[in-house]
Amino acid sequence: MRRLLTDRGAELFDLRPILLVAGLLLTTLGAAMFIPALTDIVADNDDWRVFMGSALLTLFIGGSLTLVNWGHAGKLSLQQAFVMTIFSWIALAAFAAMPLALSQLNMSYTDAFFESMSGLTTTGSTVIVGLDDAPPGILLWRALLQWLGGVGIVVMAVAMLPMLQIGGMQLFKVEAFDTPEKVLPSAARFAFSITIIYVVLTIICTICLRLAGMNWFDGVAHAMTTIATGGFSTKDASIGGFDSALIDYIVVVFMLVGSLPFALYLQTVQGKTGVIWRDPQVRLFLSAVVFLVAMMTSYQLYANVNEGWDALRYSAFNLVSVMTGTGYSSQNYSAWGPFAVVALFWIMFIGGCAGSTSCGIKIFRFHVLWAAMSAHVRRTVYPHGVFTPRYGGRPIDQAVITSVMSFFFLFFASIFVLAIALSFTGLDYITALSAAATSIANVGPGLGNMVGPAGTFTDLSDPAKWLMSAGMLLGRLELFTVLIIFTPGFWRM
Amino acid sequence: MRRLLTDRGAELFDLRPILLVAGLLLTTLGAAMFIPALTDIVADNDDWRVFMGSALLTLFIGGSLTLVNWGHAGKLSLQQAFVMTIFSWIALAAFAAMPLALSQLNMSYTDAFFESMSGLTTTGSTVIVGLDDAPPGILLWRALLQWLGGVGIVVMAVAMLPMLQIGGMQLFKVEAFDTPEKVLPSAARFAFSITIIYVVLTIICTICLRLAGMNWFDGVAHAMTTIATGGFSTKDASIGGFDSALIDYIVVVFMLVGSLPFALYLQTVQGKTGVIWRDPQVRLFLSAVVFLVAMMTSYQLYANVNEGWDALRYSAFNLVSVMTGTGYSSQNYSAWGPFAVVALFWIMFIGGCAGSTSCGIKIFRFHVLWAAMSAHVRRTVYPHGVFTPRYGGRPIDQAVITSVMSFFFLFFASIFVLAIALSFTGLDYITALSAAATSIANVGPGLGNMVGPAGTFTDLSDPAKWLMSAGMLLGRLELFTVLIIFTPGFWRM
Repeated sequence: MRRLLTDRGAELFDLRPILLVAGLLLTTLGAAMFIPALTDIVADNDDWRVFMGSALLTLFIGGSLTLVNWGHAGKLSLQQAFVMTIFSWIALAAFAAMPLALSQLNMSYTDAFFESMSGLTTTGSTVIVGLDDAPPGILLWRALLQWLGGVGIVVMAVAMLPMLQIGGMQLFKVEAFDTPEKVLPSAARFAFSITIIYVVLTIICTICLRLAGMNWFDGVAHAMTTIATGGFSTKDASIGGFDSALIDYIVVVFMLVGSLPFALYLQTVQGKTGVIWRDPQVRLFLSAVVFLVAMMTSYQLYANVNEGWDALRYSAFNLVSVMTGTGYSSQNYSAWGPFAVVALFWIMFIGGCAGSTSCGIKIFRFHVLWAAMSAHVRRTVYPHGVFTPRYGGRPIDQAVITSVMSFFFLFFASIFVLAIALSFTGLDYITALSAAATSIANVGPGLGNMVGPAGTFTDLSDPAKWLMSAGMLLGRLELFTVLIIFTPGFWRM
Repeated sequence: MRRLLTDRGAELFDLRPILLVAGLLLTTLGAAMFIPALTDIVADNDDWRVFMGSALLTLFIGGSLTLVNWGHAGKLSLQQAFVMTIFSWIALAAFAAMPLALSQLNMSYTDAFFESMSGLTTTGSTVIVGLDDAPPGILLWRALLQWLGGVGIVVMAVAMLPMLQIGGMQLFKVEAFDTPEKVLPSAARFAFSITIIYVVLTIICTICLRLAGMNWFDGVAHAMTTIATGGFSTKDASIGGFDSALIDYIVVVFMLVGSLPFALYLQTVQGKTGVIWRDPQVRLFLSAVVFLVAMMTSYQLYANVNEGWDALRYSAFNLVSVMTGTGYSSQNYSAWGPFAVVALFWIMFIGGCAGSTSCGIKIFRFHVLWAAMSAHVRRTVYPHGVFTPRYGGRPIDQAVITSVMSFFFLFFASIFVLAIALSFTGLDYITALSAAATSIANVGPGLGNMVGPAGTFTDLSDPAKWLMSAGMLLGRLELFTVLIIFTPGFWRM
């Protein structure tokens, strides 16, 4: 037994596969830094040096890690998979923050890390004031971070989380990603196919936005942050700054596109047409969107918040933005009246589909919960009946139900702990609660004057920014992935 | 099949056992109205006529229902048990509101119903301003309502909820209350024994308060609302109005006494000493109280909210009051700073032990949840191990886990729906959310200027008061009991 522990201990501390994956990801990140570097060269902005320098440093470190650990991807233990996932996200955010910290915006490293974590996790909270005058390289870099983060999330949700049994994600287990041993090569293949689809969708979105009146630069930047349900904009007034109904509706459509499971697009392209409309997640999600938008529109007409078609336009845009965790705004919805504010506060938790770029609790968990609860209620009223909760026609495993329910609890418990911690930095009740909620749910703007859609996160204290960065990571990795490494059992394995 | 449905349908609509129980309870309520009547006679206050009249009317209706339906208590179907529980509480609140509505306070029936529902559910939210000048009969009646509600809750929690499998309460199933058929006679016997203990505890509390400086009237009134963890006071300034550290600490002790399972007191009296200290609920609850009070005291000393021993005094009093759902206040804790406010907002959900007079989620549900979640986490990290969640040494049935987790979800979902509905009556975000939370959790005061410990519920609109009354009932009956009758399956049985 003692020997076994030592053996396993030795295996756990084999960091090579972890460093290899981090190296590969950092290399990609470093390569991506050339894009804003080129943009700033074209725009004749001195920040190109910052991007070029950061790119070379990141490439050097990423490349070294890759080369030194090459050939060690074969075997991956469960602990390694957890540590790898967390470590990769932190390393990426730390390096992605570099050009922001060194740029002419004069951000502290805390601010830069907050911004890059907010970008990579597709949260979309920003600490930069004056986007309208910011250099193009920085704007493009922020958009790229969300775009890269988005594809990273999709790959992680399909390749890693089901295997790690995070919050009921085992419901979406695909054979190719069944065991830690064979996950890395399959993940690489899947990442490649999904990236092509992701690029195509981004191009379509860019063209639509260009045709609707944006210039190419804004079009590309917003297409990237829309598909990634990220929410960074190139304007302080967010999408509201363009003031175009057509743009609003285009963005709504692509936020929804970004909230559906990307694996279904892959299957559709492979010839399995109709698979999207038969998916229980997609059906429930789109029904929920239609219902909630209708409700909010009715309210706006009733309460005279917006008139006529504007009620539909602003309701659909801001509600879909909050629900999918994108975080764009086209109006200051904090001023829509109490009903709207309370409703949006809760809608922010819903999220999109698992395997998409969107955030929050995610719609399938509500589905599983509902199925489990109605089976439970039936059993209460018919004590001798047999009732099996089902998802998409198949019985749901009890372990999935426990996972999902634990996720719900952990979600609110994390918001609770984070809100308490934030209130200790001096934030008032509503700001602390909504800042905690918006970071765990990866939405972006919160409620209240300070962190609402009309405010900014700049004025938060440094400890508050680090706490929120941790909250964004926690939410993005679906809580369990991070929290599990703090359980004593994890390290005794 | 069709025939079976008709037969069962006929049985369902046998209202006689339901009306019998409601009749017995109304008779008790009517008899109790003589106490404030006598008080007002002694105090030479004209309201004695109101109480006397209400008593006679309630006795007449209660007595008639009892006599007409006498002998029909034998068999009780599951549906009847649900309908009986809900109907009894509403009927009691409706009649208990009568003297309030007719008294010299000139309350509307809405206000009176809100107040009596708040009393019977031991919530403790009040719409009466000017308690200091209110006639003694009214003050005593409010205290009596909470006291009667408290014993009603204890009996319901032991006799009905485990049988109805509400939110994991089946964990506390006692053989005597196993099936709906034999529940009523056993419940009557249990109610009798528990009432004796309840009276004795109330007398001890009264004597302690008298010795600490209250007059007999205040002592009796506060003893009743303390043991019932209700929170109605005879003063606008609540217990803070007496400004005595000794009284504060006495009240803390008896709020804790009211939050422990009363069945354990019964067992202790029957000779099973030590049973209280071995109970997992009691241990976890008291540990949580000690930990949280220590945390809040440290915070107060650190942030200079109160100095020296005052920090302990005010922390212990207000925290225990919020946590047990009593709702007294001895300081305006809304002004304790963000950390305290956010912490108290969450602490309000915790509650005491099942089978006590306290409210909220209740400590055993956290215990079950924790056990289920750690077993789940262990299973994730050791996929081949067998881990059984346990409560008090015994394995927890999967149905209990599902019940408990569903309860958590339903608790927050109910707060969400109620907050949305309240915001529609025009309440701002923080008031709507905290009013919803305080009524579902049966605490009493909320947060914010309007419904906080320094505010009152008087200024809420009538629809908001009815919504909150419904919320208090929902919370008191542990959500499922009420919501289940709205499921289609319930009526098809």
